[in-house]
This record gives sequence, C-alpha cells and structure tokens, in this order.
Amino acid sequence: MLTIAGHQFSSRLFSGTGKFSHSRVMLNALKASGSELVTLAIKRIDLKQSTDNLMQPLTELGIKLLPNTSGARNAKEAIFAAQLAQEMFATNWVKLEIHPDPKYLMPDPIETLIAAETLVKQGFVVLPYVHADPVLCHRLEEVGCAAVMPLASPIGSNQGLLTKEFLQIIIEQAKVPVVIDAGIGRPSDATAAMELGADAVLVNTGIASSLQPVVMAKCFQEAVITGRNAYQVGLGQVLKQASMSSPLTGFLNELR
Amino acid sequence: MLTIAGHQFSSRLFSGTGKFSHSRVMLNALKASGSELVTLAIKRIDLKQSTDNLMQPLTELGIKLLPNTSGARNAKEAIFAAQLAQEMFATNWVKLEIHPDPKYLMPDPIETLIAAETLVKQGFVVLPYVHADPVLCHRLEEVGCAAVMPLASPIGSNQGLLTKEFLQIIIEQAKVPVVIDAGIGRPSDATAAMELGADAVLVNTGIASSLQPVVMAKCFQEAVITGRNAYQVGLGQVLKQASMSSPLTGFLNELR
Amino acid sequence: MLTIAGHQFSSRLFSGTGKFSHSRVMLNALKASGSELVTLAIKRIDLKQSTDNLMQPLTELGIKLLPNTSGARNAKEAIFAAQLAQEMFATNWVKLEIHPDPKYLMPDPIETLIAAETLVKQGFVVLPYVHADPVLCHRLEEVGCAAVMPLASPIGSNQGLLTKEFLQIIIEQAKVPVVIDAGIGRPSDATAAMELGADAVLVNTGIASSLQPVVMAKCFQEAVITGRNAYQVGLGQVLKQASMSSPLTGFLNELR
Amino acid sequence: MLTIAGHQFSSRLFSGTGKFSHSRVMLNALKASGSELVTLAIKRIDLKQSTDNLMQPLTELGIKLLPNTSGARNAKEAIFAAQLAQEMFATNWVKLEIHPDPKYLMPDPIETLIAAETLVKQGFVVLPYVHADPVLCHRLEEVGCAAVMPLASPIGSNQGLLTKEFLQIIIEQAKVPVVIDAGIGRPSDATAAMELGADAVLVNTGIASSLQPVVMAKCFQEAVITGRNAYQVGLGQVLKQASMSSPLTGFLNELR
Repeated sequence: MLTIAGHQFSSRLFSGTGKFSHSRVMLNALKASGSELVTLAIKRIDLKQSTDNLMQPLTELGIKLLPNTSGARNAKEAIFAAQLAQEMFATNWVKLEIHPDPKYLMPDPIETLIAAETLVKQGFVVLPYVHADPVLCHRLEEVGCAAVMPLASPIGSNQGLLTKEFLQIIIEQAKVPVVIDAGIGRPSDATAAMELGADAVLVNTGIASSLQPVVMAKCFQEAVITGRNAYQVGLGQVLKQASMSSPLTGFLNELR
Repeated sequence: MLTIAGHQFSSRLFSGTGKFSHSRVMLNALKASGSELVTLAIKRIDLKQSTDNLMQPLTELGIKLLPNTSGARNAKEAIFAAQLAQEMFATNWVKLEIHPDPKYLMPDPIETLIAAETLVKQGFVVLPYVHADPVLCHRLEEVGCAAVMPLASPIGSNQGLLTKEFLQIIIEQAKVPVVIDAGIGRPSDATAAMELGADAVLVNTGIASSLQPVVMAKCFQEAVITGRNAYQVGLGQVLKQASMSSPLTGFLNELR
Repeated sequence: MLTIAGHQFSSRLFSGTGKFSHSRVMLNALKASGSELVTLAIKRIDLKQSTDNLMQPLTELGIKLLPNTSGARNAKEAIFAAQLAQEMFATNWVKLEIHPDPKYLMPDPIETLIAAETLVKQGFVVLPYVHADPVLCHRLEEVGCAAVMPLASPIGSNQGLLTKEFLQIIIEQAKVPVVIDAGIGRPSDATAAMELGADAVLVNTGIASSLQPVVMAKCFQEAVITGRNAYQVGLGQVLKQASMSSPLTGFLNELR
Repeated sequence: MLTIAGHQFSSRLFSGTGKFSHSRVMLNALKASGSELVTLAIKRIDLKQSTDNLMQPLTELGIKLLPNTSGARNAKEAIFAAQLAQEMFATNWVKLEIHPDPKYLMPDPIETLIAAETLVKQGFVVLPYVHADPVLCHRLEEVGCAAVMPLASPIGSNQGLLTKEFLQIIIEQAKVPVVIDAGIGRPSDATAAMELGADAVLVNTGIASSLQPVVMAKCFQEAVITGRNAYQVGLGQVLKQASMSSPLTGFLNELR
C-alpha cells in the first residue's frame, strides 16, 4: 500500500478535475477511476462563492483533495496560492506547480525548490511537479517534500514516457514516493510507468478529454493496477536475439 | 466478441505452452490468463506417447488448441507438421510458423504463403505468423487465412512494438482478425497493441519466463482488456505543445 | 569501394529523378550529390518521344541509369516494364518495385521474388525494393539478385530508420550489398543507416523536395561518407550509466 | 558564424581532452576535428606542475581553452575551481559542471544557477552544463550566461538525443547559443542535433574512446557541418503516408 506523509492510499492512480465537460461527468469519472487523491486548481470564483458544490461530493467519495498552484509563475505566487487553498479546502496538502512559460508549461526548478522549502516549514505536505531531473528530485526530498512528481512529457501532450531513462534514475534513487505526472495519455503509458517502478501516476487529460471519461477512467485504473503487479513480479530482459517459445522439435530432420 | 473462422472468443489474449518450468505451473498460468486459444508445438515425443496428459486438462479448461509448426523450415515441412497435428490433436486449426533461420527465427514470407494456400485447400483453419508486412498479410487473407499474426519484434526478444507503424497499416487494411504475435514482453506492450486496434495478442515468453507465471498471466489478461476498452472508447491525439489540465486562474494577476 | 554486379561505385549515395521542380535543378542536384547510380521511372511519354533529353546529360555526368518499375502491381507488369526499360535506356539494370497498394506503396514480397527470379534468368541485374524482411532478402540473394534494397520506412514519408532492428539482421546476414531505400528524409538518417553497416543508401524525396535541392544533395553526400567512415572505424557501445569524460580530480576533497 | 561572448567560431564542433589514450593522439584528434573550443578538467597535478605541456600545443592549434569544473559537487566548489582555472589557464571562460551524483553525473540545477550568477558577476564567461530543462536554460540566460549546454543523454552513455523534444523547446526559446552536450556518441547524433537547430555540439567520449580518434574526429567535424547546412536549407515534414518518388506511369493500365 502506498503511504504519503502518513496517509495510506489503496489506489496508485491520482487524478484531476480539469477539462471535464460537466461536473457530473467528472464525479462519475473520478468514482470510476478509484482515485483517492485528486488535484484541483484554485479558481477566482472559489474566493467569492462556496466551494461546497465540488468539495462535498468529492469528500463523500472518500477522495482526498490536493489543491494545486497551477497558474503561479514564481515561488511567491505559489506560496500565496497554497495558503489560500489551505483555508478554502481545509487541507495542508498542496501540489506545487510553478510554470512561468504559458506555451509549454514547463516547471521552474529554482522557484519550485524555494517554494517547497518554505511551504514545508509552514507545515504543508508538499508534492512538487518537476521536470524529470534526478538531482532536483533529490534536493526536493532533502527539504522535506512528501513525494516528487516528475513529468513524463509536457502537460496535456499525450506524448507518453519521453523521459523514461531519467525517470528510471529518479525511481532508483528516490527515498520518497515517485508519482509520474503529465503526458500520460494512454492506459499503456500508465502501465509502462508503473512497470518502471513508479509509486503512482497522475492522469487528468487522458481521462477528462476522452469521449467516454467514465470508461476511460476505469481503463486507467486497471492499467495502473496491472503495471504495479507486473513490476512486483519482475519483468523480463530485452534481448537482441530471438528466443523460441516452442522447443525445437528435431523430428522433422529425422523424417526427411 | 472476437470471431475467428466462426469460433467465438471472449478473451483476446492467446497464449502458448512453451518455456514453462512445469506443466502444473503452465496449467495454472493458462487458467489465470483466461486464454481460450493456446498454441503448442508438436514434439517428437507426441508421436510415440499419448498426448492426453496435456490435452485433457487444457480441454477441461475450455481451451481450444492451436498446434503450431514451429521448427519447420519450408512449406513442405510445415504442411506435414500440420497434418500430423491434425491427427494428434484432433483439430484442423494450425498456427503456421516457418522460419529457416535459427538465430532470429524470422518467418519466411514465400513458404508461408505457399503452405497457407495448400492448407486452406485441405480444410485447415490457418493462422500464419509473419513479419509485419501489409502486402503479405493482404495476400494471406486472399488465399483464405482465418487471421494474420504479424510480429511486434523477434520472438522471445521482449522488444515490444518495434513494428508499430506497419502494424497500424495492417490493422487499417485487414478484413480478417489481426493477432499481434512475438516480442510482447510486458503488459504495457499488450495494452499498446490493443490500443492500436489489434483484434488479439499472443503472449508466451512474457508469461512463461516470469518468476511468477500465474500472476503475470493475470496481468496480461487485464492488460489486453484495458487496451481493448481504451481502443473502443477512442484515444486522444498526441500534441506538440502543452495543454493545461487546470484552467488559468487569473486571480494571481489581480492580487499583485 | 562498393561493387555491384562487377560495377564499381566510389559513391555510396544513390539517388532518383522524381519530384524535382525542373530538370535543370535535378541535374545540378544529382551532380552535387556525387551519385553514380540514379533511378528513374519509365513514363508513358518515353515510349513516344526520345529519352535523350534526360539520358544524355546524366550519361555525361558519368551516372549509371537504374530504371525502376514503379507503378507495377504484379510480377508480370514489372517484367514487362523492365523489358521496356532495357530497350529505352539500353541497360540491363533494373530496380524492381512492385507495390499493389497506392496508399502506402508497400512492396509485394511474393511478386517481387517471382519477378526477380525471371529477370535474373533473362540476364537482368536486379536490385529489388523490399520490406525490411531478412528471410525475403536472403531468398532474393539466392535467386541471383545483385543487391537488396530494404526500406527504412514508407516511401517519401521521411520517417527515418523505423526498421532499424531488422536492417541490422539483414546487414549481418547478407552476402550481397544492402542498399537502404525509402524513408530517409534527413542527412542524419543517411549517416545512421551507414553507421549500421549498410553498403549504400538511396535518397530521392529528401533531396528533390528540399527548398534547395543542390545544397541538400551535397549534405546527403557528406552524410553518407561520414556514416561509412564512422562504421569502418567502429562505434562505441551504448551505456546505461554515465561515464565521465574528465578524470575525477580529487583535489577538491583535499582542499576542503 | 557562431559568436559566443564576442568570440567567433568557424567550427560548431566543440571537443574535450578527457579519455584519450595519449596526449599525442589527443592533439592529432583535436586538430582533425577542427574544434576551436576545447574543454579540459582541472587536475591536481596542474597545481604543482606547469600546464604548458598541454596548453602550448593547443594554443598553437588556435584552440581556445574552456576549463571545466567537473568533479565539483556544489556551487562553492565550482566557483573555487573556476577561479583556479582562471589563474592556471589565463582565461575567464568556464564550462560550469556541478554533479553531486557520481553514478549518473546528472547536473544540479540549483547549484548551477547560483554558481553561474556569481561567476558572471566576477567577470567570467559562463557556459553551464545542464539537464534539458527549458526554464532553467532561460534563467541561466537571464543571469548572463554566454550560452547554455543542455544534455542529450547522460555523459559518456552514447545514448544520443534522448531529450530531443525538450531540446527543441530550448532551441525555440533561447536567445543565447545552445550547445548540445553529453551523450552524443555517433556522428549521426551530431548531425541530428544540428538539424534540430542547435548552435553547436560538444563531443568528447565519441571521439576519445574510438579505436581511431583522428578519423572519428574528422567524421564528427563533417557530421556537424552537414547537420548545420541541412538545418539552414530546411528539412521536410514527417508524413504518416507514403509519397511516391516516381510519378505514376499509367501506361501499364493502358497496355493491359
């Protein structure tokens, strides 16, 4: 079972609330996904209105909320957003996202480390979204992050595990859970991520943008379970040469 | 539901009997895989002894046997092997495998077409194992093969979907079921094959060589179901640019 | 130096005449490429008019013509086209291309082998264009083909070395020259093909579709030479782990 | 022509002095490479002995020295090493390398930015070696780095352009030269890097570990020139479908 900051998760699929067409579809998809941790952005409307419309049904599903700081362009904005979220959603968990570039939304390693260190000191449980940078992940671990969330490929691009070789290094070296985030567009990507040894994956666009988000959510749930099971059993080596499944008969020679 | 030559299969995972450490492990793994079609090589011993030891338990599991001609180096040998198999296993189904090269076990397109045509005329239900060659697959379809079995990568190599772009063409053009065979070493490969639109996959080494074949068989079963479901729902486009999951807040700007 | 059917080539870049905007551009590009073997399709106009307009300047450049049977859908059409070409271009060399499918232009292995065998018996020097199928290449060699021309990816797709693992097997096993054809869109693809150990590459679209075909032809010429030289010297192994270029200093430790 | 910090380079291949078997081989290889900028580590022996043995012949070849801080594990060590190098080699240029992890030698983004900012203020021309992180590259540019040196794959691994998609973003966004460093093991990798639009590449292991470093150095020189020329001319789009090089004849239809 996966444990992050003392909290246990029986599902290794984390999800998000963005990009869904309707909130009803979203709730059904999240239910189908089996996710127990769901990230959501802080919206301006939340400051003026009650957030109960969304929070209550999620909480009833037994889902833990993970507010994110998406839209923050530096540590200061992210820290402020985390503090707002803490009040609004009554949680000290935060997914730290800092991306100054609106085109590719790549995370800023420097601001992320600064914000992470500050937020940890303020008592937050910090899960930072970062490039697949092994040294950065190590430093985030050192300042007390509860997990690291390296990207597979740019957010929402569905490009899959572009950073595979670097994710392998991160997984090999990390002492906190590694949650692979961003770019996982297909169930096979989620399975492959878990086969690498990731502790969990976060999928949002792949589910929310699907024509049938509820079915797709279920697909990702199964994909993650399968990948985890396969990782635990152990996977075969890739060979340069063929290796026959069926033993050579020999009898054809004799009968010639 | 998948139909081949009038026979319906509720599982899209086909499997094999090679490389298992013990026959008991094999039977348990095949049971766990949910496979309803299992390929097996004709061994010399079969000619002298009863084949009941293997056949009976497989049949009791409701598994249809698919004898293969592995070891055959040309059409003549393969036809002979198919005929022997017909007697031994009381089935007119045959997986046609002709590979003259013992190192990479790559199939021979010419001999395969010759043998397929002959065997179809003799009343066999022929499933040929071939390179991921769209024109060859089309020709095998024309001579009456019940399905085509293009390779993902060399047999037993665990290299995954090396021939992806060619498999896509085959799937787009084929009017008979496309069963992706050989090289599928990890559950994520099986899911990816099904996401491409394959009708089924055949996995042997990936299961049999595992340290825990029964658990791995179950993983592949789930992987195939997940990939099929995802294909049916429809998968997202791969994008060059990022696409944010969470709506841009804007409020951070206002608060500065 | 590369020898095909007793003919020596100092350049390992073969080229084509298709897709150029003007014949003057084509001639300048072919000159810049240094190609000594150039393939060209038989066009209907050739039957009615003199072919001297094209042939004379190519011949003056010292270029050997390699008529191709592009457009042929079976062995019969290809044999007929080869015979026409022999008269028109006064050469017994032919690039055998048989592709029944107009969308992906994938070659037909069966018809290609039939046509190759017939044409070899008729005295042709046959260079067949085929899928990257090791067994087919071996069989074409056995019936007397002077070289084999496996594809890197679908013609004109610029997708590069999609069939890399299969080309490696072909190169390892072939006793006739291996000329990698189709899909080589960038000079780096040509270099990579030669680094694999190919004897030559054929590039047409990559040069002809360029905004500056003459400069691009020169790029491909250099790319092929570089790749060949690198192959002959020997290339390093790919490692999982880093390996430092600069020796570890140690002195930083002492100074702390 | 490439300009870094006001210095012009006619060659876009940078090289290194590590891993060569003998200094004579190194000098001949560097000469053959045409490199005008060569990186070298500061070794302990340099502190005690004269560095003239190495510096003089390099200077005579017209090669500019680029001392590197390889072996430094944090900003402080790197700054110290840069200052030592300034005295020893009489240059204010420095390749900033900070890698706390001895196994994969991945660079530290935080320490690199700190050291870069300090060294720039001290008047150094700083070329930092970093992960292929677009935001980090942008920040290094902002603090005054003269170029950025993102990695293709782990140092010395010969794995080629693993980070291709991220390098493309860096090249698109950077206003200082982008020098692709680390992992470029084959000439085709160097060509591909230049085709992406890199301003230069740095190759060390690929040359120094070769059985014939002088020939391989020449190969890389040509590979870089070819890739640059191809980039300037413009490269074709990758297509899903085939596109015939030879115009469809039609005459075969008429003759049937």
